[in-house]
Amino acid sequence: MRIDGRDFRTIWLDEGGRDVWVIDQRRLPHRFETLRLTSAEAAAAAIADMAVRGAPLIGATAAYGMALAAGEDASDAGLEHAAAMLQAARPTAVNLRWAVERIRRKLSGAAPSERRQAAYAEAALIADEDVAVCESIGEHGRALIEAAKTPGKARVDVLTHCNAGWLCAVDWGTALAPIYKAHRAGIPVHVWVDETRPRNQGASLTAWELGREGVPHTVIADNTGGHLMQHGQVDLCIVGTDRTTRQGDVCNKIGTYLKALAAKDNGVPFYVALPASTVDWRLRDGVAEIPIEERGAEEVTHICGLDDEGQLRTVRLTPEGSDAANYGFDVTPARLVTGLITERGVCPASEAGLTGLFGGEERAA
Amino acid sequence: MRIDGRDFRTIWLDEGGRDVWVIDQRRLPHRFETLRLTSAEAAAAAIADMAVRGAPLIGATAAYGMALAAGEDASDAGLEHAAAMLQAARPTAVNLRWAVERIRRKLSGAAPSERRQAAYAEAALIADEDVAVCESIGEHGRALIEAAKTPGKARVDVLTHCNAGWLCAVDWGTALAPIYKAHRAGIPVHVWVDETRPRNQGASLTAWELGREGVPHTVIADNTGGHLMQHGQVDLCIVGTDRTTRQGDVCNKIGTYLKALAAKDNGVPFYVALPASTVDWRLRDGVAEIPIEERGAEEVTHICGLDDEGQLRTVRLTPEGSDAANYGFDVTPARLVTGLITERGVCPASEAGLTGLFGGEERAA
Repeated sequence: MRIDGRDFRTIWLDEGGRDVWVIDQRRLPHRFETLRLTSAEAAAAAIADMAVRGAPLIGATAAYGMALAAGEDASDAGLEHAAAMLQAARPTAVNLRWAVERIRRKLSGAAPSERRQAAYAEAALIADEDVAVCESIGEHGRALIEAAKTPGKARVDVLTHCNAGWLCAVDWGTALAPIYKAHRAGIPVHVWVDETRPRNQGASLTAWELGREGVPHTVIADNTGGHLMQHGQVDLCIVGTDRTTRQGDVCNKIGTYLKALAAKDNGVPFYVALPASTVDWRLRDGVAEIPIEERGAEEVTHICGLDDEGQLRTVRLTPEGSDAANYGFDVTPARLVTGLITERGVCPASEAGLTGLFGGEERAA
Repeated sequence: MRIDGRDFRTIWLDEGGRDVWVIDQRRLPHRFETLRLTSAEAAAAAIADMAVRGAPLIGATAAYGMALAAGEDASDAGLEHAAAMLQAARPTAVNLRWAVERIRRKLSGAAPSERRQAAYAEAALIADEDVAVCESIGEHGRALIEAAKTPGKARVDVLTHCNAGWLCAVDWGTALAPIYKAHRAGIPVHVWVDETRPRNQGASLTAWELGREGVPHTVIADNTGGHLMQHGQVDLCIVGTDRTTRQGDVCNKIGTYLKALAAKDNGVPFYVALPASTVDWRLRDGVAEIPIEERGAEEVTHICGLDDEGQLRTVRLTPEGSDAANYGFDVTPARLVTGLITERGVCPASEAGLTGLFGGEERAA
């Protein structure tokens, strides 16, 4: 997507075709910096230190990390070493493991002299496939935004939670892809951006993305969406999901469930955008079956921002001696979800809906 | 309530019986400072600068401001001047106007030489009446907490939003009064404290109050309550209200409505604690009839906390160029409210419930 009028992906090859560039997301939204990755070690560090985040982007970075490794030491032992190091960078990231294994499988049948080129080609394919999936989600979702435009109302108001934008992926994103597509198609879309405490990915990453692309948006406290929906100020909600069950329950950033309840109570359509890769066909009841990650209390008790001298600074918000709890995600039951926006189209949030679009994947899982 | 084992009210008389002390709430939770008010001007400034806040406390401070004025110039002209100045300190504060008028009425029948003493006596009465109302709310609510204790569960988990504690009032508070009463009665109560963005009154004031009184509590992002309720970790919710309609709709800090929806969806009782003075008998449908205050965007885009050098510092959270919206309150419809906890007992959130307890007030309004 665009930054200051220039098109970017989150990961790209240097002109020389060897080194890999990524956007260093740790300083956003206050500073835009890029990072050159010259080795598999550097790629692993970028993943571990969260310079890159988001499942698809972590996968693409790991794939290019394998390509960098193949350029240095394409032996079986060399690749095995690189694969172990990359997979250890974020041990629970499913996409990371998947991307590394895909490159290894591709290279295992090739002679060492051909492996470097094959690895770069496969990494590029992984990145391009992700772009195609997100772009397809964007097209299917764009139609929903277009249909939500009511005559006499100047704009279509979409509410989103957290960041399921292009910064998570290689380009376009998932929940934000329909918004970008709508905006580029001339639909007057405006986005209510939940700040998304405690990590504030909405106030920082989503607002930044939308601003760079020129999409009108307004940041709100997470508490605000219910009031807006009571007063007809939200036409539809679109959020992402980290994990989707067979029956259409979605596990997304903490607080998503509250917005889905408000949408239901006010007759506002609530859509979830996802690539099929987030569907976990082994699970049915998300509330009962999905374990929710508990993160460090300091993400609640402290916050980082830009001080008036232009320095990034962390401040404490809570009194000494007050504990905090930090649950990363919650589960929104399928009964609150109007539809799932996938790369193959929009379907009901149900087993019938998902198997209708992805019958084959179900059996392969 | 207690601070470091010592009993405090939010407002009290100096030993000399003339000057008035208040807790300076602007630096909480990071610094506990008190402020001596030696004149009506100082009382007005404490209200205007929000060293004191909360409707009952603003009323009590204004009443003592009138007493300070009567000690300096007890003439009709002197009191009129002081009344105008105090009422201008927070023009929309209903309690402020009410308290000033009450003192003026009391003094209008007295000789100037008796007015000083009469003003201090009436101000003390206003403060004591507020304490009695809050304490009564506390007793009625304590019984609900006690009843919510399930055998085999070690504690009763109460979720609250914003700050409806003793810092708003003279002592005890409204939503927190039942919690203090339960804790002092030996009921093992634990409080989930919504941080309450954007002004963070939960993370700062509620957490501080509970900590000083020794009540176990955990600060959470506002996004968290739905997940906790889905997993049986909330036994009941108690919140305050700024304005209550005749049919039992409650207007409270933004985000209250979302918690009420989650409580309903999970069968968790949702109580609202209020003195009868918050009931606006002229209103029925809160969502349609109550105008919601919009506040400055900088409360969303910036936040103040304690840096690692012990300085209070404001940092920016959002990217340059991103707008923010800041609605102060939302309305929770009566259908989501399990009951209203008042100084006269607990009643259904309905016209029948309210008139059953407060039939006389209804006609007087």
